[in-house]
Amino acid sequence: MDLNADLGEGFGSWSLGDDDALLGIVTSANVACGFHAGDATTMRRVTERCVERGVAIGAQVGYRDLPGFGRRFIDVDPHELTQDVVYQLGALSAFARVAGDRVRYVKPHGALYNAIVSHEEQAAAVVAAVVDVDRALPVLGLPGSVFLRLAGEAGLTTVAESFADRAYTPQGTLVPRRLPGAVLHDAQEIAARCVAMAGGQPVRDVEGGSLQLHPGSICVHGDTPGAVGIAHRVREALTGAGVVLAPFA
Amino acid sequence: MDLNADLGEGFGSWSLGDDDALLGIVTSANVACGFHAGDATTMRRVTERCVERGVAIGAQVGYRDLPGFGRRFIDVDPHELTQDVVYQLGALSAFARVAGDRVRYVKPHGALYNAIVSHEEQAAAVVAAVVDVDRALPVLGLPGSVFLRLAGEAGLTTVAESFADRAYTPQGTLVPRRLPGAVLHDAQEIAARCVAMAGGQPVRDVEGGSLQLHPGSICVHGDTPGAVGIAHRVREALTGAGVVLAPFA
Amino acid sequence: MDLNADLGEGFGSWSLGDDDALLGIVTSANVACGFHAGDATTMRRVTERCVERGVAIGAQVGYRDLPGFGRRFIDVDPHELTQDVVYQLGALSAFARVAGDRVRYVKPHGALYNAIVSHEEQAAAVVAAVVDVDRALPVLGLPGSVFLRLAGEAGLTTVAESFADRAYTPQGTLVPRRLPGAVLHDAQEIAARCVAMAGGQPVRDVEGGSLQLHPGSICVHGDTPGAVGIAHRVREALTGAGVVLAPFA
Amino acid sequence: MDLNADLGEGFGSWSLGDDDALLGIVTSANVACGFHAGDATTMRRVTERCVERGVAIGAQVGYRDLPGFGRRFIDVDPHELTQDVVYQLGALSAFARVAGDRVRYVKPHGALYNAIVSHEEQAAAVVAAVVDVDRALPVLGLPGSVFLRLAGEAGLTTVAESFADRAYTPQGTLVPRRLPGAVLHDAQEIAARCVAMAGGQPVRDVEGGSLQLHPGSICVHGDTPGAVGIAHRVREALTGAGVVLAPFA
Repeated sequence: MDLNADLGEGFGSWSLGDDDALLGIVTSANVACGFHAGDATTMRRVTERCVERGVAIGAQVGYRDLPGFGRRFIDVDPHELTQDVVYQLGALSAFARVAGDRVRYVKPHGALYNAIVSHEEQAAAVVAAVVDVDRALPVLGLPGSVFLRLAGEAGLTTVAESFADRAYTPQGTLVPRRLPGAVLHDAQEIAARCVAMAGGQPVRDVEGGSLQLHPGSICVHGDTPGAVGIAHRVREALTGAGVVLAPFA
Repeated sequence: MDLNADLGEGFGSWSLGDDDALLGIVTSANVACGFHAGDATTMRRVTERCVERGVAIGAQVGYRDLPGFGRRFIDVDPHELTQDVVYQLGALSAFARVAGDRVRYVKPHGALYNAIVSHEEQAAAVVAAVVDVDRALPVLGLPGSVFLRLAGEAGLTTVAESFADRAYTPQGTLVPRRLPGAVLHDAQEIAARCVAMAGGQPVRDVEGGSLQLHPGSICVHGDTPGAVGIAHRVREALTGAGVVLAPFA
Repeated sequence: MDLNADLGEGFGSWSLGDDDALLGIVTSANVACGFHAGDATTMRRVTERCVERGVAIGAQVGYRDLPGFGRRFIDVDPHELTQDVVYQLGALSAFARVAGDRVRYVKPHGALYNAIVSHEEQAAAVVAAVVDVDRALPVLGLPGSVFLRLAGEAGLTTVAESFADRAYTPQGTLVPRRLPGAVLHDAQEIAARCVAMAGGQPVRDVEGGSLQLHPGSICVHGDTPGAVGIAHRVREALTGAGVVLAPFA
Repeated sequence: MDLNADLGEGFGSWSLGDDDALLGIVTSANVACGFHAGDATTMRRVTERCVERGVAIGAQVGYRDLPGFGRRFIDVDPHELTQDVVYQLGALSAFARVAGDRVRYVKPHGALYNAIVSHEEQAAAVVAAVVDVDRALPVLGLPGSVFLRLAGEAGLTTVAESFADRAYTPQGTLVPRRLPGAVLHDAQEIAARCVAMAGGQPVRDVEGGSLQLHPGSICVHGDTPGAVGIAHRVREALTGAGVVLAPFA
């Protein structure tokens, strides 16, 4: 099983999250590429450490919106969005190669991630960028999303992810964050769910039913001290259960 | 002989220069990479047209300063400057490859170009970036500059450029722009000087003496309608004199 | 009657439109405030020239999106949008006061203008900013928009504008730009429509019917050479018809 | 005596320093204005809390350089620098007025602060901005700096500051940060020096001599947890010694 998390999300003098702690936990790092977070110096450092630690480098691509951290939908022209993603992939690729590896996958970030669950034109724009740059690059996204469907139709390898700390509806979609119970906080429960997912066992949905998820990667968070602790617990539980952790890409 | 000019220097809704006209004149295009000018959509278009027209794609790297168009010295930490250049090279590389070619050379822009004539740390920082990304990439710069010296010492191919429309001192340095006569405006005179340079003949320096320049490339400008006309005249004069125009890289 | 146009929309080394020509035509200048276009030096120059020419200074506020020129909807949090508008109003106010006048009105720009025709939360956010800064500031917008309704309910002075070169539906809304005939190009026709509007006469709607508009200001454009010529023609036709041109604010 | 510190230096999703803790310590807040740090939403919150706590609002103006946090010298054209400062003063003024107060003083930040210790043109540019906006605004700076000299010559009120945690040369200049002992870390020593300064007593210079400083304000820091503790200790020591703490402006 693969564990992924967002890394390299600082900007200039501002830091965010605990990259070093996460590098000891995850097997895949979604590295911010400078459009919504991250900068060149951060990308250099994070990609080098990924290579040292054997963590796969993924491109965390997003809207061009540093003030909004990429968390606000922007109605970008799809042709321009494609180029914005190509640009980000190229920039991160340079650092990945300097570090001795290459970009292994693409995961859209924030509002872009959410938009392309259903926004056909923007989803197609992101797919077009990956196709342009490297058809061999897998994309990581939400199962059932327009993005993964279009990516698959374009011949890209698609990898579905589950979220360690999010509640699911009986239909397998995420419970919206604004609803109570959407985010799980109990480390033990979260870890147990991840072990279930990794072992092909069902987890409980928000209504108490049984839900079968088949993630190719599990997403953990690291932008708060508590989150890092939970991520650590997830890793320990998985390895304790005999799950082999390795990058999917 | 090679003719180079700056291209792709628009930003978003703002355009600058006449890229299409220049693409019919030059053999090498210094394409802005988005830090001081240029954006992803512009880079896509310009690199595609370069490939269509057989114009070599060069990386016009600069300080991160869109409001100042890269024309203001910034006392960037050298380590960070290296990463900023790596980032720009990576971004342009992606577009060059999507267009079916690759980045052929690197030419620093504006205040960075001027700074590394003498600024050891920043010159070394730019050289380090090129070495990191691709030791086979030639760099284009001012003869006698610290930049070309350090690049040569690092094993990079260095290409010295002359300016079509600038006056030179007897020592072969540029007459500073603030002095009278620093910039030439007569198209016929400029074209004649370029023919002389390309043929290995001396040109007149600002004091009337004879000066031998050995450019590997001649830089023309295109950011005003008049400049495009002059650049066109330079090309006609060179081809009329039997000079073969081709990318140096 | 008042004629308004967008001014000061350059950024750094990039210029857009012919501010000097427009300053001889309009009575109110919507001055870009630096978030989607404009910069401090441009704002200084434009506000000074407005005062010299007796043109009223209006705040052209927009989304924080220089790469997109404010033409892309951004799903900004309303509270943050209020602060972004307060910020822009403050910045322009400083220049208006240095020039010897003050900001006379507020006109949202681009995608924000369009969004708050119907987007309740964002419209309320812009209204809140104006209320916070100065309840005496009139706002300029589209008649029938949520923005003007909420502004009126908040006690602000609202001024409805008509567009010199846009076709209208029988209901008095703008024909969307993507439809044929949405933008008028014939200078004589455009000028005649403006004279009718200013005289309280109806104009023809897109289906040939008669439509009564009651603009407090007419918007002209200046971002292309042709547009300036049309704007000039509109002014001449209005003054020729005895219409007194003066700022509404 | 006045205690000042930098506040509101976050940007978007990134935070920096502990504004709330500092608001309970200082009497004057240098509020970042969005060019090197800070954003509209942060400015709104910080100015409101300053008013609630009776802390004077000062404008922390800097270079336009978010990626560099204003800590890199930029060779900005002086005329443009003046406008950049006017812009920042205007933006903060709007928030100060919305919060029920006004901007009380100006303190340049980071590399700009350092540059105008000796850079005549940039110092004059900052002074020109303050003169343009409001001649009654005091400026806070380094004693002996070109900035304070030019400000004084222009008729502005100048306030010299001392640094609580910095070592001084016998000439009263700061020991450069790269030298050992430049920054003091012992809270008790720092607090004792502040009490001496506030009481008109000399402090020890870096060579062990006696140095008389006459600050109109003492600068404390808050960008690390330790710094906040030291600032708190300084305040307690000053009030314990009977020093009345109040804004200078």
